[in-house]
Amino acid sequence: MPPPEQPKSGAARSFQAPKGTRDFYPADLLKRRYLEKLWRDTSIRHGFEEIEGPTFEHLDLYTVKSGEGIVSEIFGVFSGKDEAELAALKESGQAPFALRPEFTPTLARMYAARAGSLPKPTKWFWQQNCYRAERPQRGRLREFGQWNVDLIGDASPDADAEIIATCVGLLASLGLTPRDARVRYNHRQVLSTLLSHLGVDDEHLPAAFVLLDRRERLSDDDLEAMAFEFGLGGGDFLAFLKRPRGRATFAQLLDYLPEGNRSTGLDLTAMLKALEAELAAAGVADWCEADFNIVRGLAYYTGMVFEVHEAGDKERAIAGGGRYDNLIETFGGPSTPAVGFGMGDVVLSLVLQDRGLLPEGKALLDRLGAPGASLRPDVFVISNGQPESDAKVKPLIAELRARGLHARHSYKATRNIGKLLQDASSASSRHAAILESAAEVTLKNLDTGTQERVAIAQVADKVGA
Amino acid sequence: MPPPEQPKSGAARSFQAPKGTRDFYPADLLKRRYLEKLWRDTSIRHGFEEIEGPTFEHLDLYTVKSGEGIVSEIFGVFSGKDEAELAALKESGQAPFALRPEFTPTLARMYAARAGSLPKPTKWFWQQNCYRAERPQRGRLREFGQWNVDLIGDASPDADAEIIATCVGLLASLGLTPRDARVRYNHRQVLSTLLSHLGVDDEHLPAAFVLLDRRERLSDDDLEAMAFEFGLGGGDFLAFLKRPRGRATFAQLLDYLPEGNRSTGLDLTAMLKALEAELAAAGVADWCEADFNIVRGLAYYTGMVFEVHEAGDKERAIAGGGRYDNLIETFGGPSTPAVGFGMGDVVLSLVLQDRGLLPEGKALLDRLGAPGASLRPDVFVISNGQPESDAKVKPLIAELRARGLHARHSYKATRNIGKLLQDASSASSRHAAILESAAEVTLKNLDTGTQERVAIAQVADKVGA
Repeated sequence: MPPPEQPKSGAARSFQAPKGTRDFYPADLLKRRYLEKLWRDTSIRHGFEEIEGPTFEHLDLYTVKSGEGIVSEIFGVFSGKDEAELAALKESGQAPFALRPEFTPTLARMYAARAGSLPKPTKWFWQQNCYRAERPQRGRLREFGQWNVDLIGDASPDADAEIIATCVGLLASLGLTPRDARVRYNHRQVLSTLLSHLGVDDEHLPAAFVLLDRRERLSDDDLEAMAFEFGLGGGDFLAFLKRPRGRATFAQLLDYLPEGNRSTGLDLTAMLKALEAELAAAGVADWCEADFNIVRGLAYYTGMVFEVHEAGDKERAIAGGGRYDNLIETFGGPSTPAVGFGMGDVVLSLVLQDRGLLPEGKALLDRLGAPGASLRPDVFVISNGQPESDAKVKPLIAELRARGLHARHSYKATRNIGKLLQDASSASSRHAAILESAAEVTLKNLDTGTQERVAIAQVADKVGA
Repeated sequence: MPPPEQPKSGAARSFQAPKGTRDFYPADLLKRRYLEKLWRDTSIRHGFEEIEGPTFEHLDLYTVKSGEGIVSEIFGVFSGKDEAELAALKESGQAPFALRPEFTPTLARMYAARAGSLPKPTKWFWQQNCYRAERPQRGRLREFGQWNVDLIGDASPDADAEIIATCVGLLASLGLTPRDARVRYNHRQVLSTLLSHLGVDDEHLPAAFVLLDRRERLSDDDLEAMAFEFGLGGGDFLAFLKRPRGRATFAQLLDYLPEGNRSTGLDLTAMLKALEAELAAAGVADWCEADFNIVRGLAYYTGMVFEVHEAGDKERAIAGGGRYDNLIETFGGPSTPAVGFGMGDVVLSLVLQDRGLLPEGKALLDRLGAPGASLRPDVFVISNGQPESDAKVKPLIAELRARGLHARHSYKATRNIGKLLQDASSASSRHAAILESAAEVTLKNLDTGTQERVAIAQVADKVGA
C-alpha cells in the first residue's frame, strides 16, 4: 500500500462528467424529482410495491437473457481489489460484473429466489438509473432514469390491461391526454403466425423481431444487410420487412403472405377482444389502439406487447412493455406468467417540455411538496357477489385512482365477504367499499369499525380525496 | 453483430446478487426509504438544495483527490463499445471510469464548473449510493446509501456549526437523543501542531493522519508495520501512535511530546470557543464534545473535523465530516472554503435497529406517507438589527426546524429589512418573521401581504407546524 499523498492543490485541473451522463444542479433536479414523484405515486395508487436491487450484477445475468451480443452495449465493472479477477480481465477483456442496462433480469432473479413465499400476483415497481454504452443522441443517454412496473403470477388479459392502465395513469397525472400520447398494442402470436407463413422458422424468430422492431429507424439497404447477416435474406420475409413504413391494417399485412397462404386462421377479434374489454373497464380505452407494427425488439416477449408514442411520432417511444411468461423460469424460478413495462426519463422530459407541461418555480415547489400517494390503501373495493356489483369493481377503482387515491381489490377467487375484508385489513387499508349494487356502496372505516351506506359517486369524497 | 438468440429457457440457472450488495424486497425497502425520507426532510428544513451527478466518473477525478492508492479500493468501469478503450484496459488493467466511492469529488467538480454564478454560500445535499471494492463486514458493504451535506463559500465557525446542527437534526428526527449518539469534534490544526512537535514533516502529514485514524481498529504491531511502510517508523511519533486506546485529554497528549517541546503555543480555548458558542446558539451543544482522538483519515481536511458515534462505541462511525478549504481549487475552481459531512445507511440502520427505533407495519407506512418538508421555506427569519434580536435569529430557526418547519435566514451582510424581505421572497418563502425584540416578532405572510405581531413562542403554531 503506497503512503497517502497531499492533494495536488497546486495542479488545479478541470474535469467533466463522462459523455452521456448528467450533472443535475438544483433547478434541473427538481424537474427530475417531479417525474419520479409521479412515477412513485402512480405505482402506489395502483397497488404496486417498490423493490430495489444492486446497481451492478454478474455479467451472465444479462447474457443469459439477451445473448452475448449485449456485452458490447453495457458497461463492464470489476473490483480493483481482486488480483485473479484483474488477470482474467486483462486476458479476456470481459469484466465479471456489468452496470444494469435494464432492471428486468434483477427482478426475475429476485422473484425466482423467493417465488414460493411471494403472493400471487406479486405487484412490484422499481425506479432507479440504468446504463447503456451506446452513442448518446436525442432521447438516449448513457445514464438515464427508468421506471419499471411488473405484475407477476397472473396470465389473464386483466393483468395485461392493469399494466397498461398503470402506464396511462402516469400519463394522465402529468397532464397528457389521449390526443398527446397513444398506447399501441399488438400480440406476439399475431406476429409469429405471420412470420411462420412467411417462411421464418422458430430459431430465427428472435432475429426477425429485432429486424421488424428497427424498420422505422433504418433504410431498406441497412435492413437488407442486417437481414442477410441474421440468415433472413430470403424472399417473402424480406419484402414484408421492406414494405412501406407507417401504419398498416391486418388485411394489408396479409397481402405480403404467399398467395396460397393468406388464410392464417388467426381470429384477431378473439385474441384481442378480452384485452379490449378490460381496457374499457379500466377507463383507458380511448388512449389505446391495436397496431400490428408494434413488435418490441427483445426476444423474451410471449404475448401482448405495447409501446407508448407521442402523438406526433417525433420522438422515440415514451414507454414499452409486454407479457414475458417464460422469463422467471430462465432465472431458475418456477414457470410463472408475468407482464410489465418500462419508461425512461429522457424521452418523457422532451415530450413534456415540448408541450409546456413541466411546472416551474413556486408551482413546481408546491407540486413536489404536496403529500404523495398513501402507502396504506385508502380504499379496498369488494363486490357483494352480484354480477352488477362485479361489473363496477374495476370502474370504481379506476375512478378512485384518477382522483389520486390508493385503491385496491382482492385477487383471491373467494366471494366470501368476511375473507375479502380480512384481505383488506392485512393490506392495512383505511376503508373497504363493499359494492351492494351498481349504484351503492357500504363504506366501512377499517380503523374505527364504523360504516355507512353511500352512493358510488360519493366514495372518493367520503374517504377524503 | 451476432444474430439474437432465443432465451435459454431450458437451461434454468440460479443467480445471486454480487457479494456486498443487497436485494431490497418491499418490507426491507420501506425501512431504507424511511431513512432517506428523513435525510431529505432534514436537508430541506435546514435550507439545503439537492443535486445529483453521474454514478461513474473519470477515474482521475478520484486519483487527483485521493492519490493512486484509491484505485485498488474502487470498482473500475469501461464501455464495451470502445475498442481503443478495451485495448488500453487489457494493457494496463486500469479502467477509464470508476463507480463513485464517495460524492465529494463530483460536488467539487460541479461547484468549480459554475463557481461564478452560484450563490454564496451554496448549500447542497445529495443522497444516492456509493461503491467500495472492500471486503464486506459488519457496518460496511460494497454498495451502500450515502447522504452528503455541504456548505460552500463560508469560512466561519457559524458554517461549521450549521453543518453539525444539520447532522444532529437528523439524529433527533429519528428519535435518538444525546444519550444515544455523540458528536465528537477536533481541529486539524491542533493535530498538525502536535505532529510537527513530534517531528512529522509536512510531506508526511497525510500518512500520519491515516495512521492516527486507524488506531482504534488496529493492533500495535499492525500500526507499527504500517508506520514503517509510510516512512514514519521513528521514535516520538510511534510512541504517540501506540499510546493506550480510548479518550485522552489534551494535557495527556502533550505528555508524548519531547520534553523541551511541551509548550505548543496552541490556545485550544480560542480555537474552539467560537465553534462552541455557535453550537449552543443552534441548540445542539448537549450532543457535542471536543475529542482530540478524532482525526478523519482523508488528506483534504483543513480545519474542524467531526464524527458521530453511537454512545456505546459498538459500531463504526455513524457520520463524519469536516472543513475542506482547498478542495474546490484542486478541481479547477476558485479558492473556496467549504465544510460538510457524509452519513451512510448501513451503520445508521444497525444503531436504530439495536434501539428499536425503526418503525414497522402501519406506523412505518403512516410515517412514510406523512407530508415531507416543504420545498418552499415556511419561515424566513430576519432581525430588526438590534443586538437582542440578532441573538435570537439562530435559536428561533433551530426551534422552528425542530418543529419540522423549513426555516432560513439571509447570509447577506445587509441590515436593510427591505432587502432582507426581498431575499425571503426570492427564496419563495411563505412567511417572514422579523424579530422586533428578544420576545416579539412581526410575522408577515409573503403570499398575501398580511402581517401581525406575535410572541416568538407562537411563530411555529401560527405558520402551521
